[in-house]
Amino acid sequence: MSKSVFYHAGCSVCISAEHDIVDLVGGDNVEIVNIGEVRTRIAEAEQAGVQSVPALLTPNGNVLHLNFGASMADVKG
Amino acid sequence: MSKSVFYHAGCSVCISAEHDIVDLVGGDNVEIVNIGEVRTRIAEAEQAGVQSVPALLTPNGNVLHLNFGASMADVKG
Repeated sequence: MSKSVFYHAGCSVCISAEHDIVDLVGGDNVEIVNIGEVRTRIAEAEQAGVQSVPALLTPNGNVLHLNFGASMADVKG
Repeated sequence: MSKSVFYHAGCSVCISAEHDIVDLVGGDNVEIVNIGEVRTRIAEAEQAGVQSVPALLTPNGNVLHLNFGASMADVKG
């Protein structure tokens, strides 16, 4: 895995952090996944260790929770 | 301001996040500041909006709080 994955749920905190991460890391180096919409990927995010969104899964498998938009419980509704 | 600033306080959560950020952003693009040691920069971090460490101040002035290591109250002791 060489790309990071940015998981979010469309909230304003998420969108703001998304812009920052794309600016910092470069859009080609990060896959943006809205798990509020693409709900089939919620399990994958949880398995990776994502506890809240927005979160960045780094290429080495670490999860960086960036500020706080919503818990996974909120995302799952 | 073109560099990001990564504020931390030497905790294990901080060091792990530091490695991730340096890998992602590139060491030349981020200044690492240990406000647990360089206490004269605590005020600057607070003024930028840092509420806990580790935190990344982006070139556009946004603060991304990355996971949670310690509150600023903890850092100030």
